[in-house]
Amino acid sequence: MPMHKLETAFHPRSIAVVGASTNTMSASYSFVQHLLTYGYRGKIYPINISKSKLLGLKTYPSLKDIPDSVDYVICCIPAPKVPDLLQECHQKGVKVVHLFTGRLTETGLVEAAELEKEILEQARKFGIRLIGPNCMGIYSPFEGISFGYDFPTEPGPLGMFFQSGGASTEFVHYASLRGIRFSKVISYGNALDLDETDFLQYLSQDAETKVIASYMEGIKDGRKFLCALRQTTAVKPVIILKAGRGVAGTRAVASHTASLAGSFRIWETAIRQTGAILVHTLEEMIDAAVSFCWLPPVLGTRVGVVGGGGGKSVRSADEWEEAGFHVVPLPPEIRQEITKKVPQMWWDWIENPVDVSIMPESAWVSGLNGEILRMMSESPSFDLVIANITVDGPFGKNEMIAFINGEVQDILEINRRRTKPLAVVLDTGTLGIGDFDHWRWRFLAEQKTTLTAAKIPVYPTIAQAAKAIHHVLTYYRKN
Amino acid sequence: MPMHKLETAFHPRSIAVVGASTNTMSASYSFVQHLLTYGYRGKIYPINISKSKLLGLKTYPSLKDIPDSVDYVICCIPAPKVPDLLQECHQKGVKVVHLFTGRLTETGLVEAAELEKEILEQARKFGIRLIGPNCMGIYSPFEGISFGYDFPTEPGPLGMFFQSGGASTEFVHYASLRGIRFSKVISYGNALDLDETDFLQYLSQDAETKVIASYMEGIKDGRKFLCALRQTTAVKPVIILKAGRGVAGTRAVASHTASLAGSFRIWETAIRQTGAILVHTLEEMIDAAVSFCWLPPVLGTRVGVVGGGGGKSVRSADEWEEAGFHVVPLPPEIRQEITKKVPQMWWDWIENPVDVSIMPESAWVSGLNGEILRMMSESPSFDLVIANITVDGPFGKNEMIAFINGEVQDILEINRRRTKPLAVVLDTGTLGIGDFDHWRWRFLAEQKTTLTAAKIPVYPTIAQAAKAIHHVLTYYRKN
Repeated sequence: MPMHKLETAFHPRSIAVVGASTNTMSASYSFVQHLLTYGYRGKIYPINISKSKLLGLKTYPSLKDIPDSVDYVICCIPAPKVPDLLQECHQKGVKVVHLFTGRLTETGLVEAAELEKEILEQARKFGIRLIGPNCMGIYSPFEGISFGYDFPTEPGPLGMFFQSGGASTEFVHYASLRGIRFSKVISYGNALDLDETDFLQYLSQDAETKVIASYMEGIKDGRKFLCALRQTTAVKPVIILKAGRGVAGTRAVASHTASLAGSFRIWETAIRQTGAILVHTLEEMIDAAVSFCWLPPVLGTRVGVVGGGGGKSVRSADEWEEAGFHVVPLPPEIRQEITKKVPQMWWDWIENPVDVSIMPESAWVSGLNGEILRMMSESPSFDLVIANITVDGPFGKNEMIAFINGEVQDILEINRRRTKPLAVVLDTGTLGIGDFDHWRWRFLAEQKTTLTAAKIPVYPTIAQAAKAIHHVLTYYRKN
Repeated sequence: MPMHKLETAFHPRSIAVVGASTNTMSASYSFVQHLLTYGYRGKIYPINISKSKLLGLKTYPSLKDIPDSVDYVICCIPAPKVPDLLQECHQKGVKVVHLFTGRLTETGLVEAAELEKEILEQARKFGIRLIGPNCMGIYSPFEGISFGYDFPTEPGPLGMFFQSGGASTEFVHYASLRGIRFSKVISYGNALDLDETDFLQYLSQDAETKVIASYMEGIKDGRKFLCALRQTTAVKPVIILKAGRGVAGTRAVASHTASLAGSFRIWETAIRQTGAILVHTLEEMIDAAVSFCWLPPVLGTRVGVVGGGGGKSVRSADEWEEAGFHVVPLPPEIRQEITKKVPQMWWDWIENPVDVSIMPESAWVSGLNGEILRMMSESPSFDLVIANITVDGPFGKNEMIAFINGEVQDILEINRRRTKPLAVVLDTGTLGIGDFDHWRWRFLAEQKTTLTAAKIPVYPTIAQAAKAIHHVLTYYRKN
């Protein structure tokens, strides 16, 4: 198989940052800084006409002054200077240029659109591939390339191609909190040359990428993209957020990435037919990514739920059912087991979802809810099991810590057996700064960290869990 | 106006906790502890046959041994003993009994249902009013009565009647993080005597309660309740979460509060017709409560949005529109003002939602986005304005702190002028324990605390803000 045209972008032996400024507030400065911070092992060449040093690195007045070859260029100079730069890139043998440079077609100005066209023609003539313009480029933790501050340095299974740099930055920060790590992330802006189909195909064949997520505002070539999407969903899940769905969104897309948003209805149908998963918000996409990265295939709708009091059980029943699951009755053999262990519960009061609060205190203390969760996870009556962490109990500090610690230990133990898809609902709260020191929120955050470290999906709400896991079900039923 | 029958429950001069245990893990112990912790100023009488002291208080072997009168009883003894207790309550002149005691009709056992019936007959005979059984009772920060740990001690505008103790506990904890405070909260369980209509009517006429929220599993008398609901929504907003909507939920409701869940379709239509606001999850209810407590009436759909980059603008356009708002174009007079201040932005690139990232850096630094938000908030072209905090920027620490501090100060200043409904979207993240020490999450939590202290609604996501504020619009358009 020939090397994919994006291999150079993701594995460059040397990178030049053209227009690297000493202004610490500028993007060009931060691109250089990130290469150092994230530990990029290739050669780094900052291009700056007037300074001789930047962040301890020797700078060069122009590309042609660099003694060695350059694989990859991050371009931060104003748009009108790009055609000349491409000429220099050609002479230097550069293969891929990331155009951070913006203010092109997205401005709506005719002269900017003409300039963009000229840039494309130049690149085509020289056989140089472009990422962008008007984008943040590449985050590749494995190579030590990044476009954002405080991104994780260790890689993971999620590959992303996002038309918006801001959306990708926000996604990486907030998904990281949920435990997600990334293989390769591409922010690709106006998609002048390399487009959504190229990025999709690259991530499709990339062995490091197990799950793909994309934020798209437009499609350059619908037929080609949908064909590639169908091929990709046969081998790995693809989650798509199509932005620019309505009147105002379409207008906003034009001034953002100059894309034609197109009719969302048509998009929606076409994307769903390929087996890709369509989501509507960034938060829904994060939940879906957590689910696809960590859950085994979910193949049926029969859900068993344990944990929390009566209200939580009723809410769980409603919200799982409304998301498309069947909250099936507790099977007789589990009921018999419960009666054996707790003779006081001899009749059929206990149901699915299991309301732990109706059990005698002795049963709580001895971890009966964990025992029921284990039985459910081993029972052929359920396709997946859900543990609600009991944040709704009328507990004081010591009681809550003891009880929830028990729940979490049981979940970890059941998860180790990998008998069935297992997920957790635990809301750690939207904290104000004063809440950071309160034992309750510290304790819940600790539990979340423990569960997440074991790659058990944790969702803040029942509805989010149900919606996200239904996406997994939909994917595996189709593929 | 005669005193409402619930006045005694909310303003008792003395409270007896019957069955007060010295077991620190028991609910009865915690009821006594809460009266001390929350600063209840009346007399507290723990009833315990074998001990003479509890938490420093003198205990009594029975109600009749108490030298003074008793207004209110919290009953924690097993159900079979309740009829005898009611006899004693009658002799002692007790007006209201909160039956924490459960294991009655909700168990599904015939003998328990018969006992519940007997309890009701006794109470009726003696003219004693019952809250419960199978419930947590009352949280009244003003009086220092509580059923939960770590509830706020200062009162606020939200009154609640919740059929589930767990749901009310969870609501109070998580809504508190959002800045909500409470007038009176009632967890009422099986609603044997006093029911949803009684609690609604009480909160309806209660001057401390400005907004009402209810979690209901069933209705005892639909006609009476809907009539009271219609009367209440004419004076204050009522938010209702009807739980037990589907097959599994109906089953779960029976084993929780022994209520008949009824057909949700019929409920849905009837409740909507009264002008009450129907929500589907506890989280949606918290968002709605924040909105109703803090926003002025929202009277139109024209929304102006400022803050964040291009992707955030597109997403905002989509999500506000999909929630029922009109993301109207930026009016020419604001465009002219922008051109005056930033001559480089002379053409019509800037739109609503305003993508601050396309502006020259000098404009950012001088706070142009705050200026645009102010212009929008004073413009007759908008009915409400939304500030997205720029968490999606490619900022390093210093840049992010400077930029967002500027945004927040501008929002506070605009909010002080109270020209128009104003809300903020800011996601402080679902933190793990390791994130508690990171400057980013501490900084964002500080901003949230600052905004919340000024009673500006802060929502973690665009979609949550849009959905919640649409509830406010719906309410004020009907009433």
